[in-house]
Amino acid sequence: MTSRKLQVVSPVPADIDIANSVVPLHISEIAKDLNLNPDHYDLYGKYKAKVLLSVFDELKERQDGYYVVVGGITPTPLGEGKSTTTVGLCQALGAFLDKKVVTTLRQPSQGPTFGIKGGAAGGGYSQVIPMDEFNLHLTGDIHAITAANNLLAAAIDTRIFHENTQKDTALFNRLCPPDKEGKRAFNDIMFRRLKKLNITKTKPEDLTPEEVTKFARLDIDPDSITWRRVMDVNDRFLRKITVGQGPDEKGMVRETGFDISVASEIMAVLALTTSLSDMRERLGKMVIGNSKSGDPITADDLGLGGALTVLMKDAINPTLMQTLEGTPVLVHAGPFANIAHGNSSIVADKIALKLVGPGGYVVTEAGFGSDIGTEKFMNIKCRYSGLKPQCAIIVATIRALKMHGGGPLVTAGKPLDRAYTTENVGLVEAGCVNLARHIENTKAYGVNVVVAVNKFATDTDAEIAAVKNAALAAGAFDAVLCTHHAHGGKGAVDLGIAVQKACENATQPLKFLYPLDISIKEKIEAIARSYGASGVEYSDQAEKQIEMYTKQGFSGLPICMAKTQYSFSDNASAKGAPSGFVLPIRDVRGSIGAGFIYPLVGTMSTMPGLPTRPCFYDIDLDTETGRVKGLS
Amino acid sequence: MTSRKLQVVSPVPADIDIANSVVPLHISEIAKDLNLNPDHYDLYGKYKAKVLLSVFDELKERQDGYYVVVGGITPTPLGEGKSTTTVGLCQALGAFLDKKVVTTLRQPSQGPTFGIKGGAAGGGYSQVIPMDEFNLHLTGDIHAITAANNLLAAAIDTRIFHENTQKDTALFNRLCPPDKEGKRAFNDIMFRRLKKLNITKTKPEDLTPEEVTKFARLDIDPDSITWRRVMDVNDRFLRKITVGQGPDEKGMVRETGFDISVASEIMAVLALTTSLSDMRERLGKMVIGNSKSGDPITADDLGLGGALTVLMKDAINPTLMQTLEGTPVLVHAGPFANIAHGNSSIVADKIALKLVGPGGYVVTEAGFGSDIGTEKFMNIKCRYSGLKPQCAIIVATIRALKMHGGGPLVTAGKPLDRAYTTENVGLVEAGCVNLARHIENTKAYGVNVVVAVNKFATDTDAEIAAVKNAALAAGAFDAVLCTHHAHGGKGAVDLGIAVQKACENATQPLKFLYPLDISIKEKIEAIARSYGASGVEYSDQAEKQIEMYTKQGFSGLPICMAKTQYSFSDNASAKGAPSGFVLPIRDVRGSIGAGFIYPLVGTMSTMPGLPTRPCFYDIDLDTETGRVKGLS
Repeated sequence: MTSRKLQVVSPVPADIDIANSVVPLHISEIAKDLNLNPDHYDLYGKYKAKVLLSVFDELKERQDGYYVVVGGITPTPLGEGKSTTTVGLCQALGAFLDKKVVTTLRQPSQGPTFGIKGGAAGGGYSQVIPMDEFNLHLTGDIHAITAANNLLAAAIDTRIFHENTQKDTALFNRLCPPDKEGKRAFNDIMFRRLKKLNITKTKPEDLTPEEVTKFARLDIDPDSITWRRVMDVNDRFLRKITVGQGPDEKGMVRETGFDISVASEIMAVLALTTSLSDMRERLGKMVIGNSKSGDPITADDLGLGGALTVLMKDAINPTLMQTLEGTPVLVHAGPFANIAHGNSSIVADKIALKLVGPGGYVVTEAGFGSDIGTEKFMNIKCRYSGLKPQCAIIVATIRALKMHGGGPLVTAGKPLDRAYTTENVGLVEAGCVNLARHIENTKAYGVNVVVAVNKFATDTDAEIAAVKNAALAAGAFDAVLCTHHAHGGKGAVDLGIAVQKACENATQPLKFLYPLDISIKEKIEAIARSYGASGVEYSDQAEKQIEMYTKQGFSGLPICMAKTQYSFSDNASAKGAPSGFVLPIRDVRGSIGAGFIYPLVGTMSTMPGLPTRPCFYDIDLDTETGRVKGLS
Repeated sequence: MTSRKLQVVSPVPADIDIANSVVPLHISEIAKDLNLNPDHYDLYGKYKAKVLLSVFDELKERQDGYYVVVGGITPTPLGEGKSTTTVGLCQALGAFLDKKVVTTLRQPSQGPTFGIKGGAAGGGYSQVIPMDEFNLHLTGDIHAITAANNLLAAAIDTRIFHENTQKDTALFNRLCPPDKEGKRAFNDIMFRRLKKLNITKTKPEDLTPEEVTKFARLDIDPDSITWRRVMDVNDRFLRKITVGQGPDEKGMVRETGFDISVASEIMAVLALTTSLSDMRERLGKMVIGNSKSGDPITADDLGLGGALTVLMKDAINPTLMQTLEGTPVLVHAGPFANIAHGNSSIVADKIALKLVGPGGYVVTEAGFGSDIGTEKFMNIKCRYSGLKPQCAIIVATIRALKMHGGGPLVTAGKPLDRAYTTENVGLVEAGCVNLARHIENTKAYGVNVVVAVNKFATDTDAEIAAVKNAALAAGAFDAVLCTHHAHGGKGAVDLGIAVQKACENATQPLKFLYPLDISIKEKIEAIARSYGASGVEYSDQAEKQIEMYTKQGFSGLPICMAKTQYSFSDNASAKGAPSGFVLPIRDVRGSIGAGFIYPLVGTMSTMPGLPTRPCFYDIDLDTETGRVKGLS
């Protein structure tokens, strides 16, 4: 495997300086290591390539490699280094332990890149490069999602407008216009709607007036529309807006809003789809709201399932990049972890597992703590993919464990309390209740759990020993200290060896937390119990929605909880391992095309804002060299 | 030069069927014909490549090829085939006349592709392929513009929000936060604002309280904001909206709206820029509105000029594609032809002129009739590029000339009147007044004018002879019949020969219609006279704006008239060559970063809508072959 010797420096320089200090290999070199030839991918410049889905078909008969998922304990707002650990582990496996390995990661939103958080390519000596290409347009997938999402949004409002201003026959005549010989015909997508309406006639002229009305008039209830517009920018002023105030829109104003693009259902579809034809069907059956009589209205009803697929046809191919040590990375999809399942794509993982083959490793990240990330990875992503991980990693930091043990509040942008920078074994031990519950919950899926302690400079040996003991006591397969941020892959070699053993010793089948054929409420309650809740409380709105989705035939879908990532409970300040609380369900929504129901536990913001001094103040281009400066 | 023998069929099949019947050459083959090696471009899949700006620097000393601009007579709403003629002429020059040739074209908006108009890759046997890639995301330039435009929009509203909720010192402390040692510093972009404010101090702590206020408080007047959000979708319900209605935005609602992305000033910047450093400056000096005391507020004042450049750094490289006959095409930029100048980019033309070299040809299109397209090409684009065309083509159709001669109304989607499908030499002759004025106006720039009659099946020899006579009488260098739609390059060989002669016999320097150092009104009046107007009438709003831009120091910019393309005058139904009318100026706006002032003659829609049955109904993906169906 192509690899590159890293020259590490101490103290660790800024991320962008490390990223810029390494000249990436041409991506065709990385592809060659995976036995891909130029027919298998499309180049996007010199350092990115889209790997074509056909690669999977070609390797279908090959045995998969090991499948490893990286989750975490309940994080602080500063993050515990899951992406960095994912990348560092792969650098260890590929560049030091001589394994075939592919990292599969989410594509980050550009919102945070220019807002508060900065980039998402890992950190220190464990990064995906080129970092600017990773954090910016990449190969245009999020832009394609934005375009597709907003074409559907425009189609909804415009359809209501045209239905309000035209009689049934005029509408029908425009939908099925006569050709030069005066003949009318239904086209492909219209037959989908006819089928849904149980109309088996094939010629427009055979429809009865009642059938014409049913076919041509979607009769969308404006108040039922759940489809919002999206933009990949932190634009808080678009959270709630009124549209249609122009004179030509004849007073058909409506309150709606924008989400950040990664919160689009189309992103979740991209992440969960398994093939082009599957994507076509999922996009077509996305529900945008109801008719006034309560029937779900889909993208196909609006005539758009095909066009949306065309807009997404290149986005379905994952993007190949590389780590600082020259190991391959597939970047693909990045559904919002709060209202969607927060995992990278199924197709990237499936292709990667074939590419590494038996004895190789695919390491993927599941966003946030195991209550959010790993739970959805298992019950939603693996359910749709049919894949089973052998090993789950739980990334822990002394900092976060101290917080769970009762340490003072940790706030982004504020200096850390002394408790976090000096030895306090008692706080660490107390906080391990959080780690223990994450281990138990994750083990229950039938995987071996390896705890990775992501070392900070101030962590002491006694603190680290306390975590290892607690992890093993809670049933972890192993617990390992990692220094990949400071040392690159070399700092995660022990973790790599532990992961290898965990994979080789995995024997159990995947056990889901709940079956699909129970009611929506029973599924919600099974997940709530795993959080430590003693019960679930539903608002009237939630009850109404559950009844509606059940009536509409969607109760067989898996559940994607929209809950704070900062606690097992709904209360972000309840650290450690809270129990006995009642989990409130405020509302219940559906991403029917993507394939899940998402109950809202509290209010989830789906459009971030910009601070007074956003990251963009420091970002500029060196116009002499073409290099990006100031990206963090 | 690589070329491909076309097998033409009669009657001419649908555009998508012709496009799909040809397997494109790998784009590296096309590049090789232009003596480009793989270091000169970045591949985007197999059939597109971005040619790097550095190619121009490398060839700087080489002599340019001939420069040909394709304009038209005043069009019917059906279009007269300017793109098709541009492509057909290049196929003739490259595949039949053995010339080095590059076509430079605009990137189309995705709005019309899914709305009414369909694609913009030419038509019949004169097309750019692959047609779906040309009409859809291409290489992401428009998406980059959307992202940059909307980041700036979000920054404007959020800055007003933060200024409204913070005192001056708090604002200043957040803009220049202390580092770990408690030290504050200005960063690069802040020094731009300090310079603008004539503050020469370099340390934050040295600023007086008054200077802190001037620096930190932009004090944007919400009513003065001209910067709108954009989306590359026909979404009429976004034409006029109210933003900021969420509870966290504290009642700071504001009326604004979305334009289609190609109407963004950033698109005009991309089209008119000449280098990365020039683009950095133009983006930074874009004016988004005024402070309450009337000073223009720029993207750099908001801290964004650098980040916008980073978002646009790949977009500045033109995209190489190919025609049906294997000749090279550079697709780059596509500013809205109504409120901007409607021409493809300067950098693509400059690179192309070096690539073809002496004796070679670069053929570019200027949107709409010569009053709109060619006038802006000469007075804005050529003024900024320093380039001079040797030949201007005016595309004419018998159909449009009959309309100008008094024929009945031509409406898109309605059957043509019999006058247009049967011989009527009288109507044609009468209509040639329109052609004659376009010839005279175009000749005045010092170029040789060749009239291309784009032949339709129903045109008769007598009608065509009438046009040729009128064209020569009006001073055209030549007038030639073309059948490239039906026959590909072979059908434009005569045109190619005429263009070659026109170029070889060009002797005059470029003469602009107006100098830059006269007043805004004098420039407007010079253009109005070329339309045939006897005078200009300004609204109070226009007067106010002219006064403001003059006071702000922007009166030296060229003028970009926003006028209907359907008449020389402001009245779309005044066909032929109207004169003696008074041109009303409703409002005057500025694209200061792009570098022009645009007077509004009447109301220009900057956001199209969708019809009852948009094009998207027929667009689908064949999920077996991955091929796009139904694109027109």
